[in-house]
Amino acid sequence: MKSKARPATGRLLYAQSGGVTAVINATAAGVIQNARKHGIKVYAARNGILGALREDLIDTSKDTMAAIEALRHTPGGAFGSCRYKLKSIEANRAEYERLIDVLRAHDIRWFLYNGGNDSADTALKISQIGKTLGYDIRCIGVPKTVDNDLAVTDCCPGFGSVAKYTAVSTLEASLDVASMADTSTKVFILEVMGRHAGWIAAASGLAGEGPDQAPHIILFPERVFEEKAFIDKVKATVERVGWCTVVASEGIRNAEGQFLAEAGTRDSFGHAQLGGVAPVLAALVKEKLGFKYHWALPDYLQRSARHMASKSDAEQAYAVGKAAVDYALADMNAVMPVIVRTSDSPYRWKIESAPLEKIANREKKMPNNFLTKDGFGITAAARRYLSPLIQGEAPPPYGKDGLPKYVQLKNTAVKRKLPAFSA
Amino acid sequence: MKSKARPATGRLLYAQSGGVTAVINATAAGVIQNARKHGIKVYAARNGILGALREDLIDTSKDTMAAIEALRHTPGGAFGSCRYKLKSIEANRAEYERLIDVLRAHDIRWFLYNGGNDSADTALKISQIGKTLGYDIRCIGVPKTVDNDLAVTDCCPGFGSVAKYTAVSTLEASLDVASMADTSTKVFILEVMGRHAGWIAAASGLAGEGPDQAPHIILFPERVFEEKAFIDKVKATVERVGWCTVVASEGIRNAEGQFLAEAGTRDSFGHAQLGGVAPVLAALVKEKLGFKYHWALPDYLQRSARHMASKSDAEQAYAVGKAAVDYALADMNAVMPVIVRTSDSPYRWKIESAPLEKIANREKKMPNNFLTKDGFGITAAARRYLSPLIQGEAPPPYGKDGLPKYVQLKNTAVKRKLPAFSA
Repeated sequence: MKSKARPATGRLLYAQSGGVTAVINATAAGVIQNARKHGIKVYAARNGILGALREDLIDTSKDTMAAIEALRHTPGGAFGSCRYKLKSIEANRAEYERLIDVLRAHDIRWFLYNGGNDSADTALKISQIGKTLGYDIRCIGVPKTVDNDLAVTDCCPGFGSVAKYTAVSTLEASLDVASMADTSTKVFILEVMGRHAGWIAAASGLAGEGPDQAPHIILFPERVFEEKAFIDKVKATVERVGWCTVVASEGIRNAEGQFLAEAGTRDSFGHAQLGGVAPVLAALVKEKLGFKYHWALPDYLQRSARHMASKSDAEQAYAVGKAAVDYALADMNAVMPVIVRTSDSPYRWKIESAPLEKIANREKKMPNNFLTKDGFGITAAARRYLSPLIQGEAPPPYGKDGLPKYVQLKNTAVKRKLPAFSA
Repeated sequence: MKSKARPATGRLLYAQSGGVTAVINATAAGVIQNARKHGIKVYAARNGILGALREDLIDTSKDTMAAIEALRHTPGGAFGSCRYKLKSIEANRAEYERLIDVLRAHDIRWFLYNGGNDSADTALKISQIGKTLGYDIRCIGVPKTVDNDLAVTDCCPGFGSVAKYTAVSTLEASLDVASMADTSTKVFILEVMGRHAGWIAAASGLAGEGPDQAPHIILFPERVFEEKAFIDKVKATVERVGWCTVVASEGIRNAEGQFLAEAGTRDSFGHAQLGGVAPVLAALVKEKLGFKYHWALPDYLQRSARHMASKSDAEQAYAVGKAAVDYALADMNAVMPVIVRTSDSPYRWKIESAPLEKIANREKKMPNNFLTKDGFGITAAARRYLSPLIQGEAPPPYGKDGLPKYVQLKNTAVKRKLPAFSA
């Protein structure tokens, strides 16, 4: 992984990719602060890799130390992100050549790409293309995803905070439902993100323990949705407890492999792209059991809830950014700083480097032993894994106006040197 | 309002009514702690007025001082609430007689009913029926509602916290959308509670100021929803800013007076009782403008988010509970402690008593001058009113497990003395 000696000059380019998180800007802060310490100027690509292709670069040195420090507690992606996957080098060599042109024009010697497994793949490709095109570039992937589905790393920066938001919201809403159940809402359904993996839904399980505490039912994309078993369990729970909280991953499917949000009840409940498995489940509960229901779909609220960040998540997000700069300046290439857990309780972790080729395009599923036999809950093993990730609070500072003091950077553009390029 | 001298003995009955809030238990704490100080035993009715009718009473003296103190930071309704409105005395005299029987059987001399305008009406009726049925009872209404629609009081305990949650969530999710807009989501729609009044939606306006800051469009039930004006403003905002955040009250209606969630697009988007004006608006944006959208519907999450409570709201909720006991013990009857604002900035308020007959069954609408001319935003007058209500934080204590330390009371039942009664 080691390559040639550190270039005497040069700039570092940082880009954010894919869905943003409550703490991805903490990673940006880790990158920029560490690079400044080493006297390296950091450019950020506006709107992810597209900014690099378009030569739309931001000079982060125009922002104060205080503004960069405030990134540690500001959600969203401060430089803009994008959903854009580079094709293979064979399929679109022109894009790679353009990338190298831009890097060369601005003397960029290090590229840090902050994203999920797609981005790890992009970073890996760029790390390889430099040689082919005769430009010396070191490329480091930096982990980020609320989906927690990156290989190798013990967990992904961004996940711990959405996990904490989900567990706390499940706890709070369930106290509400419990109060109302006698004459009103008996079933509450919370839909959470997770198209392919049920990590976020699993985190809701931390809100309670034992059969009578909420959430009573968790629906995972890892398990086929079986209507009868679900309805039977809702009924039994309401009869025993008086009410029932259900947490559903957006990606649950029926035995035919159809997303529940799009299947079966489609005719009554509209276009598939409307999304929302929660209303489908709610209608099912109403039809089969007649219970009054409420449902919630926090969507972006869950992944941007910096006010509810997990302390360890915020710290890890910063640490991977800082480590990425260390790796880059140590002339490493095609690696990613990953989180290694050394102890569950007390929770201890460290950062190590891992080769991007072990991470790119892979997906970490939830282990089978994390789900209970009936598929509606999490096991003690899952709790041991998940619990440390939501521990500790890292609230943002608040202003006198009662709002968190989130920062808006200047995002000063770097002067273009090349002709336009349409990606 | 003053009545006879304070009874030498007797108990105080407290009941929670209607939709619960993040801070209604702070009111319960104010009631119980103040009553304990005066040596008065507090019974709570399980599940609101129904518990009183069923003689299903809870002896709050069985819970420790620490548990009662923890109510100050625990959301939901600790004794259960209900949606149940007593009929008029003429229509159902038996219910009132039963109530008096239960009060008499347990030597209850003060009844504190914690709810909205319906509950104020119930409290008023009970305050009158005592005389008719020859039982000496003092009845105090205690304000609570996230809807902020109670007459006389400057604001309603419960509203400030949902207002803060809504403003913060709007701010956070908008930072997310801004990051994604280049290649993905351009329009974000947040649906908030408010069937008849747009107070909660209005509070989202505190997240930003000026035409370019989110929320760019607020949809109020006080204004007819005009599709063209809405679509035009979304389009203009996306063209100018790059993205657009919309906050919609659940209760917005079209020119025909139909709820948007049930009207027009009904055929494509399913049963009306599914609720959700956000997906209807999202589909409209997609159809007319082709923009990618996301939408969120936090539902109970917004009113149970004790983790995001407004400090002044939590303090006011406690204060009205405490004052209600003072009024009861001062032999006042048919009154409610209300919040009187004495200064906007710095925010200052005090508690005064108001006659229930000025509050019962009335509804406070948003003043006309709180909405901008185009009906899509809030004015400076609205900001002056709303801003103090979300100021200050009052986070709950957190455990080592990363979850707020919410209390579950013992809720020990008082032994029944009367035959059963089915309400």
